[in-house]
Parts: sequence; C-alpha cells; structure tokens
Amino acid sequence: MVVILEKNATKEQVQNVINHLENYGFKVHISEGAEKTIIGAIGVQPNFDIRNISILEGVEDVYRVTTPYKLASRSFKEENTVIKIKDVEIGGNKIAMMAGPCSVENEDQIFKLAETVAKSGAKILRGGAFKPRTSPYSFQGLGVEGLKMMRAAADKYNLLVITEVMQISHIELIEPYTDIFQVGARNMQNFPLLKELGNVKKPVMLKRGIAATIEEWLMSAEYILSGGNPDVMLCERGIRTFETYTRNTFDLSAIPIVHKKSHLPVIADPSHATGLRDQVPPMARAAVAAGADGLMIEIHDDPERALSDGPQALLPDTFINLMKELDAIAKVINRSL
Amino acid sequence: MVVILEKNATKEQVQNVINHLENYGFKVHISEGAEKTIIGAIGVQPNFDIRNISILEGVEDVYRVTTPYKLASRSFKEENTVIKIKDVEIGGNKIAMMAGPCSVENEDQIFKLAETVAKSGAKILRGGAFKPRTSPYSFQGLGVEGLKMMRAAADKYNLLVITEVMQISHIELIEPYTDIFQVGARNMQNFPLLKELGNVKKPVMLKRGIAATIEEWLMSAEYILSGGNPDVMLCERGIRTFETYTRNTFDLSAIPIVHKKSHLPVIADPSHATGLRDQVPPMARAAVAAGADGLMIEIHDDPERALSDGPQALLPDTFINLMKELDAIAKVINRSL
Amino acid sequence: MVVILEKNATKEQVQNVINHLENYGFKVHISEGAEKTIIGAIGVQPNFDIRNISILEGVEDVYRVTTPYKLASRSFKEENTVIKIKDVEIGGNKIAMMAGPCSVENEDQIFKLAETVAKSGAKILRGGAFKPRTSPYSFQGLGVEGLKMMRAAADKYNLLVITEVMQISHIELIEPYTDIFQVGARNMQNFPLLKELGNVKKPVMLKRGIAATIEEWLMSAEYILSGGNPDVMLCERGIRTFETYTRNTFDLSAIPIVHKKSHLPVIADPSHATGLRDQVPPMARAAVAAGADGLMIEIHDDPERALSDGPQALLPDTFINLMKELDAIAKVINRSL
Amino acid sequence: MVVILEKNATKEQVQNVINHLENYGFKVHISEGAEKTIIGAIGVQPNFDIRNISILEGVEDVYRVTTPYKLASRSFKEENTVIKIKDVEIGGNKIAMMAGPCSVENEDQIFKLAETVAKSGAKILRGGAFKPRTSPYSFQGLGVEGLKMMRAAADKYNLLVITEVMQISHIELIEPYTDIFQVGARNMQNFPLLKELGNVKKPVMLKRGIAATIEEWLMSAEYILSGGNPDVMLCERGIRTFETYTRNTFDLSAIPIVHKKSHLPVIADPSHATGLRDQVPPMARAAVAAGADGLMIEIHDDPERALSDGPQALLPDTFINLMKELDAIAKVINRSL
Repeated sequence: MVVILEKNATKEQVQNVINHLENYGFKVHISEGAEKTIIGAIGVQPNFDIRNISILEGVEDVYRVTTPYKLASRSFKEENTVIKIKDVEIGGNKIAMMAGPCSVENEDQIFKLAETVAKSGAKILRGGAFKPRTSPYSFQGLGVEGLKMMRAAADKYNLLVITEVMQISHIELIEPYTDIFQVGARNMQNFPLLKELGNVKKPVMLKRGIAATIEEWLMSAEYILSGGNPDVMLCERGIRTFETYTRNTFDLSAIPIVHKKSHLPVIADPSHATGLRDQVPPMARAAVAAGADGLMIEIHDDPERALSDGPQALLPDTFINLMKELDAIAKVINRSL
Repeated sequence: MVVILEKNATKEQVQNVINHLENYGFKVHISEGAEKTIIGAIGVQPNFDIRNISILEGVEDVYRVTTPYKLASRSFKEENTVIKIKDVEIGGNKIAMMAGPCSVENEDQIFKLAETVAKSGAKILRGGAFKPRTSPYSFQGLGVEGLKMMRAAADKYNLLVITEVMQISHIELIEPYTDIFQVGARNMQNFPLLKELGNVKKPVMLKRGIAATIEEWLMSAEYILSGGNPDVMLCERGIRTFETYTRNTFDLSAIPIVHKKSHLPVIADPSHATGLRDQVPPMARAAVAAGADGLMIEIHDDPERALSDGPQALLPDTFINLMKELDAIAKVINRSL
Repeated sequence: MVVILEKNATKEQVQNVINHLENYGFKVHISEGAEKTIIGAIGVQPNFDIRNISILEGVEDVYRVTTPYKLASRSFKEENTVIKIKDVEIGGNKIAMMAGPCSVENEDQIFKLAETVAKSGAKILRGGAFKPRTSPYSFQGLGVEGLKMMRAAADKYNLLVITEVMQISHIELIEPYTDIFQVGARNMQNFPLLKELGNVKKPVMLKRGIAATIEEWLMSAEYILSGGNPDVMLCERGIRTFETYTRNTFDLSAIPIVHKKSHLPVIADPSHATGLRDQVPPMARAAVAAGADGLMIEIHDDPERALSDGPQALLPDTFINLMKELDAIAKVINRSL
Repeated sequence: MVVILEKNATKEQVQNVINHLENYGFKVHISEGAEKTIIGAIGVQPNFDIRNISILEGVEDVYRVTTPYKLASRSFKEENTVIKIKDVEIGGNKIAMMAGPCSVENEDQIFKLAETVAKSGAKILRGGAFKPRTSPYSFQGLGVEGLKMMRAAADKYNLLVITEVMQISHIELIEPYTDIFQVGARNMQNFPLLKELGNVKKPVMLKRGIAATIEEWLMSAEYILSGGNPDVMLCERGIRTFETYTRNTFDLSAIPIVHKKSHLPVIADPSHATGLRDQVPPMARAAVAAGADGLMIEIHDDPERALSDGPQALLPDTFINLMKELDAIAKVINRSL
C-alpha cells in the first residue's frame, strides 16, 4: 500500500498515519519529496480496506499495490491455462466455437440446431434449460426435460454441452447433462453459487456482469479457483453504458487486457453484447481479430418463433458462412477454428 | 406496441409487418402521416420481445406501451403501500430509520450499537451476519451466531431487525431472527432467491443493483410481489458511473421517480452510496429532503477496528446529531422521524 | 509518482525503470517488500504522462501523487473563495439563488420573470441569449437583442445577470450586459474559450461536462484561474449514466467532494439535471441539504409556449413556495437564502 | 410523435392532450386498446420538444417518430458517401489509413514519420499543431510552425494531411496546410465551430464525444452538412464508461450501427480509444474486421521522448507489420487497404 500525504499535513498527522499502519501490521518506509510525503506500507494483506487509511486526517490518497486476486493472475501462473474436455481444448491455439439456441424448446429444434453446429465445424452446443428472465411472466425454460434433449442431441452429433446454472440446488441436477457450467452475467457476484462451483469437477464459464470491472470479474473467478476448480474460462458479453442503440456495449478491449492480467481463456459472446442479428457477424469477426479464445453465438432455425432472444439469433446458413470468415481471420493471427 | 416504419418502406414491407403482428395476436391500427406510417398494435402481451418486430425490413423503431411490471405499478395500486411491523410503519408519514454496523462482530459491539440506535430514536437495527464480499479471502460474517446476538440486542432495546439473505437455503435459517429480509445489490437479479422471498411472511427490502435501471428494479420487485408477498420496500444505494471519487453515484432522483411510477416505499442508503464517512451526513440530509421514506445508515463505535466497511461508518455521536438535523429537515416537508 | 513493480520483475527491468525515471528528472526512493518493490519518484512535474512509465516492462502500476490542478485546490488556498458582485456574495454563508427562463424570448416575458425572481428573494436573473442546441434546426436564441432586454429587466428589479457565452468572439459582445459569464457543460473543455475567460474582469460559472470527472472539472477551472481570473464558481448539472428515466443523473455527492478538494463555490442546477418540472423541487431541496452554495433554477410564466426547455421550468408560484422550503432547510445547517 | 396515455387517464385528460397537440399543429389519430389509448400525432416538426406533452396529466410516455437528423440519415441518401481528395477515396471499398504522431514536434520527427507512413502504404499523415490539453500547463502544440513542417513532409512523400482545428479563428490559419479538418471529441458539440466548418471547402472528420450517443454524433454532423459541406466523415475513438483499465471503452459496434443509420464513412481510432500501445494492434484488427472505412493510428519513432501521448504510439516497425495484418483481414471481407 502507498499512502500520499497532503501537502499541508502536520507532523502529528503523519505520525498518526504511521502509528495506524504499524498497528495494522505493516512495515513503513517514508519518502519525503519537495511537495509531498509518500509512505510505502509493506506487508501482504491483500484484502485490507484501504479506506481505513484514506479517512485519516492529512491523507490525500491511498493506493493498493497488491492485486486482490492471486490464483487468477498471470504473475501466479505465467503460461496460459488450456482447458481440455474430451478432444476439445479451450485456451490453446484453436478458437473454441460454441453455438446453439438461447433456450432449448423441443426435440426437433435442438436436434436440427445440433446438426447445424456439427456441420459448421463448431464443437460445443449451447442451450438454456433454466433461464434468468427479467420478468416473472416470461418463459423460464424447460428444466430437466430440456437438458435431456440437449444431451441426446449433442451426443448424436459428437458435441460438448454448455448450459447455465442459476442456483446451488441445480448443480447436481445439471451435472450429468453438461460438460461446462455457465454462470450468467447476473450471477457473477452470486458468491455462494461460485463457492459451490469451486467444488465441481467440470469447467465453468464465468460471464462478466454488465457493470463489473475486469478486476471484479477476476475476483469472482478467484472464488471458483480458490475452491479447488482450476478450469475457469471468462466470457465477455457486453457492459452497460449510456449508449442505447445496442443492448450493451461490447468491450472488446477486455480481451487483450485479461490476457495480460490473467492466464485464463476469454470467450466472447457477440449475440448478447449486441442483441441484434445484423450486428453479430461484424462483432464476431472483431472478437476473433482481437484475440478471443472462443466465441459463443446464438443460432435458431426459426427465430421468429423462438421462445426467447429470437431477434439476436443467426440463421443456420448465416452462421455456417460466418464460420468460414472467422477461420480466415484467425489464420491472419496464426490461429484457427 | 407502436411500430414506426421507415420513410422509404415499401408496401410489401408494411404488409409483412402487419402480417407478423396479426400472427403474434395483435390488433392493428394504421396512421399514415406525411413522412411516416405508424402502426399501433393493440393487445396485452407485456413480455413480448419487441425486437421480433424491430428486425423486420422497413421498420425504423418499435416502442412498448405497456409497462412490464404490474403489481409494482402506481396504476395498479394508487395509494402508497405502508408496511406495518409491530409499532413501526414504513411508507407512511414517518421516515423509518435503520442503523447499525456493517457486520455483527461480537456481543459487546452489537449491544452497544443497539443502545445507540435506540437512544437516537431510530427503530430498526441493521447488521450483516452473512456477507457478500468481493474477495473470497475477506471476512464472510459470523453466520447464525451473529443473528442470535443481533436479535438479543434488538429485543433488549425494543428494535426491529433487518439483515441480508444471500441464498435460498438461508431463508429458513434467518427467518426466526429477523423482521425484514434484505436483498443486496448483487442479488437484485437472483431470480430464484426473489421467487422464494415471494413466499415468506415477512417484508423484504430490495436494494437496487449498481447497474440496474429503475424499470429493472421494479421488475425484480414484481418477482417478489407476484409470489404473494406484498410487503416490498426498495432501497437506493448508488449506481456505478464513470466518477471514481465516490464508491458509487447516489442517484437521489430515483426517489421521486419511484414514487411516481410505483406505490412501494423507497429507502436510501448513503453509507454504501458514498463509501466515506464524511459524505454520509450531507447525503443523508439530501435523501430526506428528496422524499425518502427511510434511511439505512452504518454506525460503529470503533470504526478503525471494524471487520468490514469501517471507513463509511458514523461514530455514535455523529449519528445522534445527524438524527436531529434529519428530523428538522423532515418537518420542512411535513414529515417526521 | 509511485511505481509498483511486478512480483516477477527482473533486476534489469527494475534498473531500466530507475534509469527512465532519472532521465525524466525524478529523484528515486526504493522500498522493497516481501512481494513487491515500490519506487517513489520525487520531483514536481504535475503534467508528466505516467503512461510513459506504465508501459515499461516489469511495471505493474503507476500512481500520480500530485494533483494536476493547483490554483483550484484546497491545499493551495485553505479558506473558501467568496465572490462578491455588488451586494451579493457567492460562496459565503448565504446561498445564492439564480432563476429565470431557459431562453430570453421577448420583453414581456423577461420583465415578468424578473419581477418573480425579485419577489421570491433571489438576487440573480438567468436567461440564455445565445443557446447551444443539439439540433441546427432549433431556436438558437435572440442574441444581443435578448441581452439588452435581460439587462433592462434585471436593472429594473435590482438583480444581477448571468448568461452563457459559447464562443470567444462573443465575450466582448456579452460583457456589457452580464455580471457573470456562464460556460455550459458542452464547452467545459473548450480550452481556447476558457483561456480567454481567464482575462475577463467578471466572474465565471463553469458547468460540469456530462462526462467530466470532478478532477477534469477542476482542471478546466484551473485554465481560467491560471489566466488571472480568480472568480470561478462551479456548477453541477447532472452527469450521463445508463439510467434513462431522468435526462441526466444529478451527482449531488459532487458538492461535498468539491468542497473538500477545492476552495471554489459550487452551484447546483436541478432543472438541467432532471429535465422535468416535477423533480425540480425535491432535487432543489436535496441540493441545499447537501451543502450547495447556490442554485440555478429555470422558471417560466407560460412553460407550454416556452421556446426551449419549457417542460423543466417551474411556474412562478411553485418557485416562490420552493424558496420558502429551501430557506427552512438552509437554516437547519446554519445557512440562509 | 406517439403519445401513450395512462391506463387510468380520464376523458378530460385525454381531451386536454388532444387539444395541446392540435394547438402545436399536429394532426391526431387515436387508437383505443384494451388497456391503453395511443395517440399518433402526425406532422413534421423534427425538433419539437416531446417533454411538452410528456408533462401533461394522464400521459405515460411519448416517443418521437422522426429522426432528428436528416441530411446525415441513410433514408435521405441511400448510397454511401465517398469522399474524394486527390487520388484518395474515403468511404469506398478501400480502407483509408491515417497515421502520424500525436503532436508535430520538429522537422526531423515529422519527416521521418511521414517516410514511415508512405512506406507502409498509408496515404494520410496525421499530426497535431494545436492541441487540446486537459491541463493548462501541458505542451499546447507548435502552432503554425508545426503546420508548415507537416505540409512539407506530406508533400515530399505524396501524402494527404489531417490536423485538428479547435477554434473558429484558426480555420483560415490552418486551411492552406491541411486536406482534412479534424474536430476533436471535446469539440463535438462546439456548435459555433461546426457551423463555420459547414462553410469550408474541405472535408471534416468529426470525432465522437466521449459521452455522446450515436444520435447526438449524427446531429453534430448535421450541423456541418446543413451548412453546405457534404464531406463529413465520423470517427469513433472510445466512450467513457465505468471501466478504468483502458482510457476509454472502444465502442466498435458503433461502426455497423452508423453504417445502418447513415451514409457517412466511419473511421476508427484505436490509439485514443485504448491509450496503451499494447492494445492498439488487436483493436486495430478488430476495427477493420467490424467494417471501419478507415483507421487513424498514432506512431512515433522515439515514443519515450514524445511531447504528448507517447505511451499510445506504435513504433514504425510495429506499424508496418500491422498494416500487413490489416490488409489480410480486409481481404476476408472483400476490401483492401
């Protein structure tokens, strides 16, 4: 921790700050400048609330010097985390493609879409069976029936499954049917859920909350990692800003930043980030160009009748063409789909 | 729903939009203007995803005309909801004051602070026993032991208790010790938790998420109301913006807006909104002046040793003085503490 | 400046950082901790771009320790700046009330409203003659004719005048008719204009840009102060956030923060912050309760026919009643109108 | 305009709304639904302030149906605007590359960098001679001397020049030396400046303000277009959000949205959007993949000694390599550099 004293701080105020720091267990180094005195407080207390010092008289500013996350940080683990599930790797040279409907709606739908996914070359089928909906009156998902259909469809076409888990009591329920647990943006700071997911034996994809800083996102990953589950991937899906033409603002610069700060893979979700079909292809291309380790894209064979998020779903043919463009862009940066 | 067509929309496009609307079950009224054609689509489908229409060719914009929340709306219930708990009313003429520590830490602390709360004239004791912390390495609360201490302290000084619930499995655990369940900002869209709280027989205080619009906040209240629990109060505690000098930006204009859109009481929490002790008194005064139905304020007798959020806690004397100022301001608008 | 090195930084990287700092003219102090090395770089270079250091290898973070503004800072001048104009003081114990129409529209209107302002006890007449409008097709103000009418009305009722200046070439034009120059939110970083206003002999009220941090706002004040004009007051008028029910989000906590960081007076403008008449009275009361040194409020005798911003204008009677409430709230914190 | 009445609106309230609309000159169409009455108000008044209706009793919501910009809209002009300057086209199939230093610093620097720009295949040299700086104490640019150097360097290497204009009185000064006038983000709503640029005979690049919606940005373009200058290009350079790891958040989805709403070309500036050299290449690639019509990139041969924004400048070699990657990505979407 670094403490900057006010220009006019009195000797008594400076001494009081020093006493506080020493009482909290820090070793203190003082640098006196022409204008300001700076105190370096040494000692590993990553979760010390720096406001305890910032409210003392004579203190102008306080900065934390230790990142609050450890296991998620690049300095803890230098090489990239590569998550292996059957014959799929996430975080390596290949870009992992996840596609499927927003919600599983019926057998016919999910089998058709699984076929499209397989045909496109993607390896992972997405689909919601338990849905977090803003309104209590909206379709809430098919539940376990939906999971069974999706698993069968994935197995038929040799695909992995990713699906969302919204509450602790559903972890056991969902586990037999999925290969990856997805934590949605609204649950990014549902800490009891994250703690439980630290105990499961399957990978977790953690979506960024719409108002979460990158640091808070990595702190939430830390909850899962510190519980003992090393297979965490992150997913950027748009943040909330003042702009209203798009549902959210797709923060693509989060991709290179997470790659710098952390060893965990980063997936991008252009469907939720933009909310409109037209914008999914350009933003999907941009995400690959920016270095995403994977993409999650919503598709639907009859979007006008989709029970949720039809307007952001790509038609199967559009998706298959997009896959070709994405592969060509990946090659420019020496990766592939 | 109102559909605005593009200036250059063709007859075929207009007819296609009409067909879609009719297929979705809407009755259609057309107004042709000099520049634009407007279609009014009549029919009560509050959760219809308007993007289904906005992606059709020739459509420029679509607006929803029904508010997506019902039970929470002022048009559903004109008179203010007044929540009665023992001899305390929330939402009536009196302003409900809630105060206490961020976390219950030990018996001595909570009894001392309960005494302060009672002495100040406030009627409700706050305190966290299960804490949502950004870091897995931070103090997570005393759990049931903390609840027991707080209940005993509240009973001794004839106070009500409010405490946070973070997960479904804790509802039963907490219920015997609390008078009001608090849902924190991070759980504002934890829909499974909200649904369960629709079944409890005690009031719920729903904090606004840091990136939640007022409409989404009311939709989350709707989850609890539609489950059968009519006693919901809202709590504004700051939203996330670009400004970093404060922890959050206290959105005081939310108070008169909620009062216009909804019949539910609105509490304000200046401690979390600002994050620093110095700013709590001016912002508490401002909240009363803006029409808040209650305030939640963190206090601590030894904030430098507080296990959480010490820097935003008021000292007991400061709090007692503040209560007098707040009462004087309340009188200016014909209310009282 | 404080430089935090990465945990795994090599000796060569550390030495390279030190060399850079010394080449830039800083004196270097090193504190080695268990986990991290911290370098204090001493030397007054308030506008040094710290990114020059943050991009060096081995550097984790860099913090500036000197505030970039000087003349505007509380540490430069401890006592409050009180601006005196004729018999009015701004920044002292009395709260300065400014009221009038958004735009001066005609003689009848401005004389009627000046009468209302005087009757209410306010001392300063506001009114726009040159208007910044989002659309090139909107009413752009009456120009010099408007200024003449406003000056005559103010003189008749013994009021001061405040009006907006949008471009350098208008300073001389406006100067004879106004007592205070207003710089609008859109021009907060129009640096050539600010520089010129550093040379005028009349006070300047600088509105906060809708996306400006408090630090940037004070930096813009610094442009005026450093040009030689000490009479700068600031005006909070709402910031842009994700919430759309209000035109802007009124950041009332900026008031106590500016009072802590700076000696300059802070005015609050609830009319532009909220954009709707209903919300002006509660937010005006909140601003006084939060410690504002003045308020600027739009009024209109016939708001439905106002040429601009009619919907946010108070009717004369509402304004006169509001003045009484504001005075009562001011007394609670030992101030008066 | 569409007016939605409250469910409980009385007949008198509805009639009052109708009277107001008719007095304002609108033709009125009424649609009565099961729950709500909707009024379509027909008549072209693009700048009518809809709040005049929204404050009437019984009104729930009001929506504008005409876009407030005309000349900038795709419905006004369907084909893309292609701006031709000598042998360069902006807005056509080729992607226009602009590169150079943040500030022109001396002859040696600008000639070296012009050589790099030419060698890379880019056609437009950027460089600041008049600089908008947050601090009055920072380097403010070389002024006309800088312009002369940049023009000479550009002429030697057969490049176009783009440079920023900050005030009206500089337009004439700068005009002989530049091919494109740049309006910076801080001046996006400096309406007097925009009006004057509507009269010049050279193209204008209008940067998006950090808190400007896409609609406001297009309204500012409308100021220039309506003055008679048809050659306007837009430039996305990052918006302000809550995230602080990047200087701004690069809103790449603005690119496809502007292409949908407007016929004007869109340039992307990854240097200012991110603020750090490391992130410029991935974000530049993403911008091309998203469909940008041009890129503006800062380069410097000795960034550690740059007088401004050195940390975001690419080294010449990095830039030349990046150009190759960008060209390869452009080809994937059938464009080229």
